[in-house]
Amino acid sequence: MLLPHWLQHYKKDQLNGDIIAGIIVAVVLVPQSMAYGMLAGLPPEVALYSSVLPLLLYAAFGSSRTLAVGPVGLMSLMTGATLIDQGITDINEMVTAAHTLALLVGAALLPMRIARLGAVINFLSHPVISGFVSGSAVVIALSQLKHIFGLDIPTGLPAYESFYLTISQIPQSNIATTGIGLGSLALLWWFKSSLAKILSRQSISEGAIQFITKSGPFAAVAISTVVVYQLGLNNQHSVSIIGDIPVGLPEILIPSVDPVLIQRLLPNALFIALIGYFESVSIAKSMASQKRQKIDSNKELIGLGTANIASAISGGFPVAGGFGRSMVNFSAGANSPLASVFTACLVALTLLFFTPLFFFLPKAALAAIIILAVLPLIDTHTLKQAWEYDRTDALSLLITFFTVLAVDVETGIIAGVVISIGLYLNRSSQPHIAIVGQIENTEHYRNVTRHEVITDDRILAIRVDENLYFANTNYLEDTIMRLVAENKAIDHVLLICSSISFIDTSALESLDNTFYHLEKADIKMHFAEIKGPVMDKLRNTAFIKKIGEENVFLSTHKAFQTLKEQQ
Amino acid sequence: MLLPHWLQHYKKDQLNGDIIAGIIVAVVLVPQSMAYGMLAGLPPEVALYSSVLPLLLYAAFGSSRTLAVGPVGLMSLMTGATLIDQGITDINEMVTAAHTLALLVGAALLPMRIARLGAVINFLSHPVISGFVSGSAVVIALSQLKHIFGLDIPTGLPAYESFYLTISQIPQSNIATTGIGLGSLALLWWFKSSLAKILSRQSISEGAIQFITKSGPFAAVAISTVVVYQLGLNNQHSVSIIGDIPVGLPEILIPSVDPVLIQRLLPNALFIALIGYFESVSIAKSMASQKRQKIDSNKELIGLGTANIASAISGGFPVAGGFGRSMVNFSAGANSPLASVFTACLVALTLLFFTPLFFFLPKAALAAIIILAVLPLIDTHTLKQAWEYDRTDALSLLITFFTVLAVDVETGIIAGVVISIGLYLNRSSQPHIAIVGQIENTEHYRNVTRHEVITDDRILAIRVDENLYFANTNYLEDTIMRLVAENKAIDHVLLICSSISFIDTSALESLDNTFYHLEKADIKMHFAEIKGPVMDKLRNTAFIKKIGEENVFLSTHKAFQTLKEQQ
Repeated sequence: MLLPHWLQHYKKDQLNGDIIAGIIVAVVLVPQSMAYGMLAGLPPEVALYSSVLPLLLYAAFGSSRTLAVGPVGLMSLMTGATLIDQGITDINEMVTAAHTLALLVGAALLPMRIARLGAVINFLSHPVISGFVSGSAVVIALSQLKHIFGLDIPTGLPAYESFYLTISQIPQSNIATTGIGLGSLALLWWFKSSLAKILSRQSISEGAIQFITKSGPFAAVAISTVVVYQLGLNNQHSVSIIGDIPVGLPEILIPSVDPVLIQRLLPNALFIALIGYFESVSIAKSMASQKRQKIDSNKELIGLGTANIASAISGGFPVAGGFGRSMVNFSAGANSPLASVFTACLVALTLLFFTPLFFFLPKAALAAIIILAVLPLIDTHTLKQAWEYDRTDALSLLITFFTVLAVDVETGIIAGVVISIGLYLNRSSQPHIAIVGQIENTEHYRNVTRHEVITDDRILAIRVDENLYFANTNYLEDTIMRLVAENKAIDHVLLICSSISFIDTSALESLDNTFYHLEKADIKMHFAEIKGPVMDKLRNTAFIKKIGEENVFLSTHKAFQTLKEQQ
Repeated sequence: MLLPHWLQHYKKDQLNGDIIAGIIVAVVLVPQSMAYGMLAGLPPEVALYSSVLPLLLYAAFGSSRTLAVGPVGLMSLMTGATLIDQGITDINEMVTAAHTLALLVGAALLPMRIARLGAVINFLSHPVISGFVSGSAVVIALSQLKHIFGLDIPTGLPAYESFYLTISQIPQSNIATTGIGLGSLALLWWFKSSLAKILSRQSISEGAIQFITKSGPFAAVAISTVVVYQLGLNNQHSVSIIGDIPVGLPEILIPSVDPVLIQRLLPNALFIALIGYFESVSIAKSMASQKRQKIDSNKELIGLGTANIASAISGGFPVAGGFGRSMVNFSAGANSPLASVFTACLVALTLLFFTPLFFFLPKAALAAIIILAVLPLIDTHTLKQAWEYDRTDALSLLITFFTVLAVDVETGIIAGVVISIGLYLNRSSQPHIAIVGQIENTEHYRNVTRHEVITDDRILAIRVDENLYFANTNYLEDTIMRLVAENKAIDHVLLICSSISFIDTSALESLDNTFYHLEKADIKMHFAEIKGPVMDKLRNTAFIKKIGEENVFLSTHKAFQTLKEQQ
């Protein structure tokens, strides 16, 4: 049998770390899964099923050693939104559609490798991603408030509307539910913020501290379940509980491939696939770089693709690599994907024996788990950095963030991409154009406004700090003609091309035009420092023949020396 | 009274040229107007009304001396398409909507000046424009075939469908109409191609030749009208004729400002305004540059805006500067907008006295006039040039062209813009990265694959020929890490930034990441030739403090000298 690379070279001393990490991740994953299932509006078992087979497939085919695959907040949110968008509200239909969606996501990821579609993510700037992730985290957190307060808010509304409705109905909260919800939030917060400090003062091993502090969700589940059961809160105070979860492993079944359903789900499936791929690769890269390992984007597409197909055929919904759990896995010392195999086994054991224990688990506790899981994704650091470094980047971040909140995640990311491309084009459409002169006794030529340089009245030497293409070619033409008009002494225009990596057809026409006008005004046009690849393309054009090869200089210095001698 | 600039400085010797040009343009304009009215599906008088007041207003406010404003093919096509799109088919409603459309086009042009929206046209590359103009010309020409053959083809179909229908129905052509249509085409072609040569052999003055060769449309109108009248072709052979055109000048009336109608027409009005502005400015610029005059884009917006509003209130439809007639005006010796004033007066005289003469004018002759007017717009030169110089530009030209034919002009231009921006981003997402070395005994550093240079195994000096921004930052990071992994001797990575005009937030993060990885591998990172504006922004970042100002060199040469001394 062909074993994965990491397994062929497995070393004994890696086992300890993998076992511990596998257990800790499982302790986080079981409650988180059920919570993300709830976020998608699906029964908890769908999410638990997504936490077994997909993990094994990713371990076999993925390239990251420590990525923790399974249900994640963003994918769950988008899955739920897709079902609502398509008007699928019957619970059985929702479950079927969720399987089909996972199948489509998996099926979309596999051919992306061939079409190199993964490159699309290059068009997402970091600020747009930051705005998108923060916005999604806020949307997810806000969507859980209704569970914390036990309110009945319709789904499918934009985040701000749903938030407004929730706030306005807080007076009608269910007191018992609110108690459990806020109590769970407090407990989880305490695990996260204070417990590690308390434990580190005791003489407890580092590993045990890791284990205890990460089991906050588990503790919230356990305590809230016991409280509801003991006090009978589900009956007497109508606290919403999880209820029955079927015992046993998922059956392997080919999901519905109803063509009508596929057609309805496909556009969103492509989007979910791209986002899931992007999220997973980002996390995997960030962990791999810390250990100087490499992520292979193509293997990632296969790993995630097969994981989603595995989810589809084992009763699950779309999965991806999750930020929080991957960090837990990584910091708990996982050395290889074997850790995920242990995690999957533990989830399987839970499905086989322990699901009846979750009957009285209140939804408010799960909501608290979701909120605490997504809060760290809200990233103000990038906003601050972008604001200080480049306001236009900060602007695209904010537009993405607020569009996610005001409309939805898809529109948010599309708005972000459009705005960042637009701003980039706008920036490059008015390139920096420097008039340069010689630094005394050197062969260097620099901007006249920034350096003390020697110039010659008869020579206008300008350096364009941008590729010449359709969006900026008018600007260049206008600038040259304006400079020439302002200074009647000019006999030579020297265009220094050290920053120009390509000249498109529009720009070539525009240069031709400029040449024509300058010629009419008895001004000669010259070029210096044209780069090799640019010159290769220019060499065969009528334009360069018009200019004359003798007017194309290798260096600015040579051009200046030659032109100074000319009368 | 505040006279326009050109009138304040009017010289007597300009008058002759203006009168002759004014007359010749009028001779072309009257038949062309009626033809373009037919193209838009509107009565001929609407187009004639568009040829009086708008010309006077443009003369008063525009900046081009020779631009011939009035009905043009593209605007008429788009006006007709807009009315069909909106389901406006009743002739009275169509006329009202055409006035409103002109009002909206004018109203849209005026504030564009403030919003600097004219800059949007910078995002149209020359190849996209060429594909768009050629495609529109073909669409217009094809749309007239039905009139040539006297067929009844429904409007509002994509060009290829309408063409297919026409061809398949040619056996059912109206013989008399076909005779007139083909005869007119032949006559016009003869005027265009052979007449000038014949006349130049006679001893006729240049001016008279100009006048005679340009009166082809007038001759086609006169001859075909006489033929139809004499042979009674309209009754006996059901040849379609123009019919009644009301006698007299247009009334000045504020057009309907029905809010519902405005809402329906507004999106297309904005589009027509942009295209009209673009077409006019392109023509005006090309003529002005030949006479070393200047076009003021802002004045153009006002000139065209008021011309369209004038058209709206005097019973016309959207107008712009036309390519063909402007060329006629220019080459007939027009010196100032006074030529257009004469033209307007002659059209007014026609409206006052001569419209009954057009009663028997066959539509087939007008169709022939349209076809001959738009054929010169089909531009294969740019395609050929782009194909040789840059295939991606040729691709965007062809996509635009075929989308115009297969869908419509709006979709065509949108497709062209999207594809050219996409290709540009794709190109800049994989920038040219050169490894450089020293040219012996100089301070110059060049690509190792193109020049004989001296390198140092311990120093990897790379020059990135592109701005660093979100779309290419992953590529750079991957390339550096690959180069470092391939050559274990490297101790220093020197990034030469001579081609980098800005570094966005994403790229800054990516550089930070690269620095982190290199540091872990005991490799130092240095920079050279960072441009002034880029350094200004970097100076305050945490990144440059990490790098250390001592590792940022003014020149590549200094960097090499310093690094060679280091162990």
